[in-house]
Amino acid sequence: MKPYNKVTSHEVAALAGVSRSAVSRTFTPGASVSVKTREKVENAARKLGYRPNALARSLIVRSTRMIGLVMAEWQNPFYTRMLRQFSERFQAEGYQLLLLTSASDAGVDDAVRRLLQYQVDGLLIVSAKPSEAMAEECERAGTPVVLINRHSPVIRASSVTCDNAQIGRDIFAMLQSAGYRRVALVLGDPGVLTGIERNAAINEAAAAGKDIRVVAEISGCLGYEAGRQAVIDMWKAAERPDAIVCSSDPTALGILDGARLDLKLAVPEELAVVGLGDIPQSSWGAYRLTTVHLPVDEMINLAVEDLLAHLEDPQLEPRPMTARARLVHRDSVRVRPEA
Amino acid sequence: MKPYNKVTSHEVAALAGVSRSAVSRTFTPGASVSVKTREKVENAARKLGYRPNALARSLIVRSTRMIGLVMAEWQNPFYTRMLRQFSERFQAEGYQLLLLTSASDAGVDDAVRRLLQYQVDGLLIVSAKPSEAMAEECERAGTPVVLINRHSPVIRASSVTCDNAQIGRDIFAMLQSAGYRRVALVLGDPGVLTGIERNAAINEAAAAGKDIRVVAEISGCLGYEAGRQAVIDMWKAAERPDAIVCSSDPTALGILDGARLDLKLAVPEELAVVGLGDIPQSSWGAYRLTTVHLPVDEMINLAVEDLLAHLEDPQLEPRPMTARARLVHRDSVRVRPEA
Repeated sequence: MKPYNKVTSHEVAALAGVSRSAVSRTFTPGASVSVKTREKVENAARKLGYRPNALARSLIVRSTRMIGLVMAEWQNPFYTRMLRQFSERFQAEGYQLLLLTSASDAGVDDAVRRLLQYQVDGLLIVSAKPSEAMAEECERAGTPVVLINRHSPVIRASSVTCDNAQIGRDIFAMLQSAGYRRVALVLGDPGVLTGIERNAAINEAAAAGKDIRVVAEISGCLGYEAGRQAVIDMWKAAERPDAIVCSSDPTALGILDGARLDLKLAVPEELAVVGLGDIPQSSWGAYRLTTVHLPVDEMINLAVEDLLAHLEDPQLEPRPMTARARLVHRDSVRVRPEA
Repeated sequence: MKPYNKVTSHEVAALAGVSRSAVSRTFTPGASVSVKTREKVENAARKLGYRPNALARSLIVRSTRMIGLVMAEWQNPFYTRMLRQFSERFQAEGYQLLLLTSASDAGVDDAVRRLLQYQVDGLLIVSAKPSEAMAEECERAGTPVVLINRHSPVIRASSVTCDNAQIGRDIFAMLQSAGYRRVALVLGDPGVLTGIERNAAINEAAAAGKDIRVVAEISGCLGYEAGRQAVIDMWKAAERPDAIVCSSDPTALGILDGARLDLKLAVPEELAVVGLGDIPQSSWGAYRLTTVHLPVDEMINLAVEDLLAHLEDPQLEPRPMTARARLVHRDSVRVRPEA
């Protein structure tokens, strides 16, 4: 049990020889106060052992300056980079993140309920979405929600996603013009929108044309080790692909090593490998993976700006936002058809 | 401004036909309540739009069930793995993490001050330490502190570190027995204890013997790109090393690619490379880096158990804890001297 602070801001103001409002401003993030006054107040506060209670204050001003963050995906470095940037951006605006982890969509409602009990001012949900009922509860509570990498027409929340179908069409066109003919699609978590929408677009393009076929579709394959094993397994099948499209870079790097080191295949001559995410390792000399650069910075910007706008004006309508990804051409896909 | 909840737990209890204490237990993490009662209470709460206010409650029970977490290092995947595990472990105990980022030791005091204002029950500080004065303020506030990867004899806080000097001696012995003679030491952030203590032990061992010399010591070299450039620069110097010991795996992987791809050196015949951290990429087929496995899980366990013990019993004294790291022998250091 914590011994609660008994010193009041009146006593601090008296010792510092300033107004009580000056004490309050000194301890309010972003409030204007002169360097000299701040120094006086901080000295007096230290002498008296005064510590403002941000929570008691939040009950009066009706803002906790906490943003609830639900993380449902940690495996991909993409998401921890996001977490870091969210932390830094909101901290600069005087907010802190209250962090909960959810193992799946199913756990998201529990996490959101807990964060609402902490009276967070707003919510970011990364790579998962709440139920319709929970989203309604957030709306009744006046707590704006932004979904990252998920969207839903039935949930009233802002969302930031990529144009995944366009990425799928871009990859298809790249493989087609380079002369690849038998594509395998590798999905990680079967519930992740990015991969699903991308693969749907590739399947659609393959069905519409005649020269490329989708020869294998596997899901639940996530991470380096899983990828390395997956390509070995594919080589035991009757029909082998000449191009593999992955829904995450670590998986693609495992496939690349499995192809070159275990199966002794020439990449990109005998097999093309395409990743998703453009993590730092993909540009490293040993890999040089052709992949999709997800516009992380743009997605973070859109999410932060939208949430801040809703905190400012609760009447704003939630909106879907799309950031544009782009293909990064490196060495794991050849550029021209074989002679 | 958020419309605060006006429905009381009395009204929920009346509609659900249960006691007020049953309502309270339903919304207290870890409290005992039957499935049937929980269902009645949750239905009534939903109908009335009731949401318990965890913050108002925290002012009464004097525990917010929030743990403040200050992250001062994000670059190394090691730390984000730590963050994830802290989140999951404390969440399982009914706590949530209130997260702040600090760019340096200098920013830590500000972050800690902010977290104290939020009445966090305890504090974890990763890869940085607060000032002596701020640590005293935490103690006066009755808020236990655990430092990760930092310790200080003058700060009253628990700490979890590795036995860095022992790692240094182990690396020295490995290089010596394999016949390497000219070692370069590469440090990232010059303030990071792990690298400093390790390099000090290597310098000491080199000074005590005759067969290995430290031919270069560079600092401020962190990350893949920096490592790749650093080894190229070293090859322009008068005396070239035949072994490079790095304070982070990403840097070591950059050095490995720089050595093999840019300088066309044979690793480990012409050059040994040793990392620190054993990140997943270091075991990947294209790298097979000899490195130091930091006992992340053990460190997390020690930190979590210690903080929970202090929350249980505020009279407990803070204590320093050490976890044992171990060398991971892969392919970037040869095992025997050259014939």
